[in-house]
Amino acid sequence: MKREVWSSRFGEWFRDVLLNAGILDYRYPIKGFGVWMPYGFEIRRNILQVMRNLLDATGHKEVLFPTLIPEDLLAKEAEHVKSFEEECYWVTHGGSKRLRVRYALRPTSETAIMPMVKLWVRSHADLPIKLYQIVSVFRYETKATRPILRMREVASFKEAHTIHATFEEADAQVREAVKIYRRFFDELCVPYLISKRPDWDKFAGAEYTIAFDMICPDGRTLQIGTAHNLGQNFSKAFGVLYETEDGRREYAWTTSYGISGRAVAAPLIVHGDDHGLVLPPKLAPIQVVVIPIPYKGFEERVEEAAKSVASKLREAGIRTELDLREDLTPGSKFYYWELRGVPLRVEVGPRDVERGEVTLVRRDTLERQACPVESVVDSVKGLIEKLTEEMRERAWRWMREHVRRVESLEEAKRLLEQRFGVVEAPWCGEEECGHRMEELLDARILGTPIDMEEEFQGRCIVCGKAANQVVRVAITY
Amino acid sequence: MKREVWSSRFGEWFRDVLLNAGILDYRYPIKGFGVWMPYGFEIRRNILQVMRNLLDATGHKEVLFPTLIPEDLLAKEAEHVKSFEEECYWVTHGGSKRLRVRYALRPTSETAIMPMVKLWVRSHADLPIKLYQIVSVFRYETKATRPILRMREVASFKEAHTIHATFEEADAQVREAVKIYRRFFDELCVPYLISKRPDWDKFAGAEYTIAFDMICPDGRTLQIGTAHNLGQNFSKAFGVLYETEDGRREYAWTTSYGISGRAVAAPLIVHGDDHGLVLPPKLAPIQVVVIPIPYKGFEERVEEAAKSVASKLREAGIRTELDLREDLTPGSKFYYWELRGVPLRVEVGPRDVERGEVTLVRRDTLERQACPVESVVDSVKGLIEKLTEEMRERAWRWMREHVRRVESLEEAKRLLEQRFGVVEAPWCGEEECGHRMEELLDARILGTPIDMEEEFQGRCIVCGKAANQVVRVAITY
Repeated sequence: MKREVWSSRFGEWFRDVLLNAGILDYRYPIKGFGVWMPYGFEIRRNILQVMRNLLDATGHKEVLFPTLIPEDLLAKEAEHVKSFEEECYWVTHGGSKRLRVRYALRPTSETAIMPMVKLWVRSHADLPIKLYQIVSVFRYETKATRPILRMREVASFKEAHTIHATFEEADAQVREAVKIYRRFFDELCVPYLISKRPDWDKFAGAEYTIAFDMICPDGRTLQIGTAHNLGQNFSKAFGVLYETEDGRREYAWTTSYGISGRAVAAPLIVHGDDHGLVLPPKLAPIQVVVIPIPYKGFEERVEEAAKSVASKLREAGIRTELDLREDLTPGSKFYYWELRGVPLRVEVGPRDVERGEVTLVRRDTLERQACPVESVVDSVKGLIEKLTEEMRERAWRWMREHVRRVESLEEAKRLLEQRFGVVEAPWCGEEECGHRMEELLDARILGTPIDMEEEFQGRCIVCGKAANQVVRVAITY
Repeated sequence: MKREVWSSRFGEWFRDVLLNAGILDYRYPIKGFGVWMPYGFEIRRNILQVMRNLLDATGHKEVLFPTLIPEDLLAKEAEHVKSFEEECYWVTHGGSKRLRVRYALRPTSETAIMPMVKLWVRSHADLPIKLYQIVSVFRYETKATRPILRMREVASFKEAHTIHATFEEADAQVREAVKIYRRFFDELCVPYLISKRPDWDKFAGAEYTIAFDMICPDGRTLQIGTAHNLGQNFSKAFGVLYETEDGRREYAWTTSYGISGRAVAAPLIVHGDDHGLVLPPKLAPIQVVVIPIPYKGFEERVEEAAKSVASKLREAGIRTELDLREDLTPGSKFYYWELRGVPLRVEVGPRDVERGEVTLVRRDTLERQACPVESVVDSVKGLIEKLTEEMRERAWRWMREHVRRVESLEEAKRLLEQRFGVVEAPWCGEEECGHRMEELLDARILGTPIDMEEEFQGRCIVCGKAANQVVRVAITY
């Protein structure tokens, strides 16, 4: 439950826990490429299922586009290619034959999807189209790579792409995307800030970009989701026209929104502690581990009781592991499953058996409580709900404590240097002041809050002019 | 129900149905790369779920390895690289920078997995390891590409890789793989032949290869699954050693087995007819479509009845679509859903309503039957089971009719020229006779049956020597 290593040596903590808990092995012989191990893959599967459920329920259709994009397609949208060409991996040969056109490993799929959409869209009746896919994307990053946080192969990129008849519909779609992502991160118990990125930091080819950021234990922020209104930029570049009700031909309006493998990292980062992972029960491959505490003369009775509890829990649909390994002491088993973040432990010892009880131990608080065997299923169900709620609240509280309104450059600078988290600074709205602020603070502007209700009046911390908005500023990953 | 186009112009039939039913759009601007469309993706999802269930239930763990393999790793197993290097797509640049080592887009993942397994395996207690992943693999095929059947990006490759302490265990694992694949294709209602590939056609780096083949309506066979005992070839190339119980260091034994996107094609091919697809209910995204047949003055009553039937079916867990589109006639709706292979249609017309009935129409036979509204759920459930069974039996019967034992080269040649299917020819077992047979018949040897019980005595159709086995020969895709 201590969170010293977690916060003070976060980078190290994260790298170690990924390998030791069997999430991601980062020793693959290409830098920035990792191996999703069985336990990590199961967490990833559960998380992606949450996403699929949300998207399927809102009329999105899952599809699968090719991994490769010919260079001439990628180049069709000018801003887009400018931003991505230096980050692409390029396929130049098939066997020993040089290819006529180079292929990029997709960095994102707008330019793969648009030429097909052009074939699919005839009239307004074909719209809207709402597609998504979950695929690997590739970025030849020049920045230092980090396991999951900055990979060169992002192995769980969920990208959605939608096509609409009007700007308003595209705009409403971006709002729907934000709503879906809110629910998604709520289910993951991950708190977030939602900001409209400044113009100079929007997605290449977008009208505007809305982004979700979280705060890591080291005070740096991590972008965990983005939604873009792409206007008619891509439809014009690719000639995606549709016939309106009154027979005119118009360019379509498109959006895209994505969530990367970082969505898998986010709950691990937010809830972890010095013992290892703490998984929200919904994502946990194993929700409850049952561990018998044998004692001379009681071995059989204890084991029988543990088995019976485990099968009761399984029958109730709770993902339960019964740890009967003979070569490990109960203490080593505690350590093993705490590291892996199993939300609840059920201990069955000789005294428990005598009393007709078991002992329940929460992973998040390490609190213990006795529970009569008859009501173990109800107690476990109740605790799962309770600890999910408490994990979510605790994480939100922690995040809110790491966001602070500032009045001056000095205050902002001091907080950012302390790696406090996110500062919200009054800003006049001028791009020049924005750049200057980033420079003076040696930090990045996340953008203007779109999750803030109250009106604001203040003075820009750079130029001192009246400011009716704040910008969020942080040291980012 | 007619199967003339299906069999006589199979290639065309298949290409058309893939696009028109919304399975795969093959017009992506790279040859051999396709787009899985929403309906096709859902079928694929259902099929992969069958596979995941079978593998998870037999202790396989799902993982995800990188898409790229450095050239020096790929080259470690000599046979392997010889077979694949001319078929690999090569990544040579990151941005504008030339990479020090070229990366192959994985053609298969043995050489990505072995270096990691080397890190994971210490002692016999770590074995066996049974992994699988479902990923895109890439082959720069020189043969003519065909939608799904021969792609350059195989977008749904399920590859399993296992590591064992002894040859016997690896051997038993290959048998388990064959058992799993049998069940898999049984659930898909796809009939198969299981053969041990001749030595000259085994997987590069394998001791032996067992393969599943199906017969297409044009008499050509399609390889739909393979399982390989890799002996110690890969563990020696990659130095995968483990410590035995008595403390010696030994090379591990490995296997791999795979099923490609062709598994998605297989049920479409086997059951199709001139109206389009016929999906086994288990794989069908929509199992039942309810279509109201409006009649003047009865519109509302018919629609109400249709809605009520649809919601009854949905409540019973049957994937049901209610087609209320107003711009289509009932006839066009029939056509639309028949093309897409929906197993059962429920028609609700004015006469049905009067009688308290609905009309059920089977997609496979187009047979109609009346059914009282009260028992519609039971009738539909019963029919789904019945037609699944009958589809499976019909397909097996059709396949068996297209396999024939021959006694002479002439007979074999005649049948193969007629595109009859598979011939089983007595073979002495000499490689030379095998090659000669392939040459004379202008066909390929699939191998010796491992799904045949009876003993055999005959004379090799090439050299006339005594033969105690047959080989299967076919024109292959």
